[in-house]
Amino acid sequence: MAPNDDQFQANDAYSRAGVDIAAGNAAVARYKDVLGAWRHPDQLDAIGGFGGLFKLPGDGERALVASTDGVGTKILIAAELQRFDGVGRDLVNHCVNDILVVNATPLFFLDYYAVGKLDPEIAAAVVQGCANACRAHNCALLGGETAEMPGVYAPGHFDLAGTIVGIVDRADVPKPETVVAGDAIVGLPAVGLHTNGYSLARAVLPREEWEAPFEGGTYADALLAEHPSYLKEVRAIQAVANVKTMAHITGGGLLENVPRTLPAHAKAIFEQSRWSVPPIMRELVRRGGLTVEERYRTLNMGVGYTLIVPLADAPAALAAVPGAMVVGWIENRAGDEAQVVVHPAREA
Amino acid sequence: MAPNDDQFQANDAYSRAGVDIAAGNAAVARYKDVLGAWRHPDQLDAIGGFGGLFKLPGDGERALVASTDGVGTKILIAAELQRFDGVGRDLVNHCVNDILVVNATPLFFLDYYAVGKLDPEIAAAVVQGCANACRAHNCALLGGETAEMPGVYAPGHFDLAGTIVGIVDRADVPKPETVVAGDAIVGLPAVGLHTNGYSLARAVLPREEWEAPFEGGTYADALLAEHPSYLKEVRAIQAVANVKTMAHITGGGLLENVPRTLPAHAKAIFEQSRWSVPPIMRELVRRGGLTVEERYRTLNMGVGYTLIVPLADAPAALAAVPGAMVVGWIENRAGDEAQVVVHPAREA
Repeated sequence: MAPNDDQFQANDAYSRAGVDIAAGNAAVARYKDVLGAWRHPDQLDAIGGFGGLFKLPGDGERALVASTDGVGTKILIAAELQRFDGVGRDLVNHCVNDILVVNATPLFFLDYYAVGKLDPEIAAAVVQGCANACRAHNCALLGGETAEMPGVYAPGHFDLAGTIVGIVDRADVPKPETVVAGDAIVGLPAVGLHTNGYSLARAVLPREEWEAPFEGGTYADALLAEHPSYLKEVRAIQAVANVKTMAHITGGGLLENVPRTLPAHAKAIFEQSRWSVPPIMRELVRRGGLTVEERYRTLNMGVGYTLIVPLADAPAALAAVPGAMVVGWIENRAGDEAQVVVHPAREA
Repeated sequence: MAPNDDQFQANDAYSRAGVDIAAGNAAVARYKDVLGAWRHPDQLDAIGGFGGLFKLPGDGERALVASTDGVGTKILIAAELQRFDGVGRDLVNHCVNDILVVNATPLFFLDYYAVGKLDPEIAAAVVQGCANACRAHNCALLGGETAEMPGVYAPGHFDLAGTIVGIVDRADVPKPETVVAGDAIVGLPAVGLHTNGYSLARAVLPREEWEAPFEGGTYADALLAEHPSYLKEVRAIQAVANVKTMAHITGGGLLENVPRTLPAHAKAIFEQSRWSVPPIMRELVRRGGLTVEERYRTLNMGVGYTLIVPLADAPAALAAVPGAMVVGWIENRAGDEAQVVVHPAREA
């Protein structure tokens, strides 16, 4: 069964977790109306909405690329377990990957950290995590805001969001129209959930079990595993292969992120037997009884980032990055077909 | 009594409102350690930390200026009263003013909107407010993130933050060392609390009274009054006067924001009889029994933005912007004196 067969039940896993995808889509539709009313003349079209592009002042050949994101409800697990060092790293890496999709290299980052009651030690740990990840990318941590907001956040609760600004040669912005049938899809392995699926994880994996042993560590270790940056891996592959388009597999999974980088006449076929699904995701699939559709729309299922390359370039791409794998291929698409099909393995 | 006489009780008004200034200062001190460990070579010194500066790629003469901020607990009043149209405008205007202090002109803005339960109509109203204010500044609304986070935010609660990026000629970045004794301080009038002092307002002004009549409207109208942008006014004054440094009077009031734009050898003397304090602030001062120190550290007290100009330029500055007023002057400062002194009027 192709996952798109049951797309009309797609919201189940999210809605069971308290996240309303239909409301999200309705909000996005409303935003389009709002944003369509006026555009700045220096604003450039971006592919798939991954990052906003703005002409670099005084330089017609280059563009600034900006993106804002948060770490989502992963922070609830981090807060509950008092493990604050990883959330800043996760946030920066997430943002780096988001603008990497349009081929941008990071310039600077700013964080927004909001709490019910400010603890300077925790705040410093969070910002230290951001600073370390920024430095690893030669990206300035240019500023930020720490807001203490009693009443908005309960004591012990917080939120963390960030904005990254990068730069790209406009000629290097990926072009979905170059993707053709027969191209290979190279996948970079996910370490864990990264920053998506945590409302679901919290719904099906009770707090009492978080510190129980799981796969050589604890459930908490698996849940809080790093959201990696793929910048170095992508640059290594680009050095040896013609990378046509890329996708960062975040909320919406393979099913919603890959189509944003495809032309209308192409569809992506994934064959899950080609890669292994991390144990924590198999556990969530089992406990939540997730349909195939739900799995690939709520979780990354083990593929953190995809790159579409000519089939002939695939061997060089795989050789350039240990762990990279061919996870699927491109086929021609008839007008009414789904843009992503996942052939599931017998087990998740 | 000069307000600095009792600076050691300065935290009372905030701490009564649940905001811990000492923790905030401790966090800032920790951040300095974190951020001091490494700086990107293209990061430039900013005055007073109002906005981060980054060399414009390929252009040694100009810099990008970025700032992240939130609207604070003003959103709790907006949410309670279901008045969502103003918060986006307040946020954008706040950010515009923050980078205006380093003389930057806005290029683009991104919002971060996080909720417990997503309502597409409310989300659209919030983003519409951002879009309108961006358009008014010829600033692209380049992107944003809407996060539904059950568990972090209670139903009906939300947070809103934003990041602005602007541009400035490096030669036009204000230089505190140009400020000398005898300069005049021009103030631009505040409309109300803007985006600061709301935790205090909620502590001393009970919810039951918010919709009661007050000064021709309601308390709610006064509390939710616009945080104005001062971009047009500042540009009008700069056209006729030599503006040396500027300050956006946000959290910390005149006492904490003005020193960020002064050289060590200068102090700013404000004479409150020179301007009128908005009625809502007089009410909060009365109800909260705020000391002079507390007033000028928690609230803007009617001055939303300050510009330091040579005394000879002051008449032209006042003529250029209706409502602008001379609110004080610069004197020489001995090493151990406060950098800001407010001579209070008999009544707040």
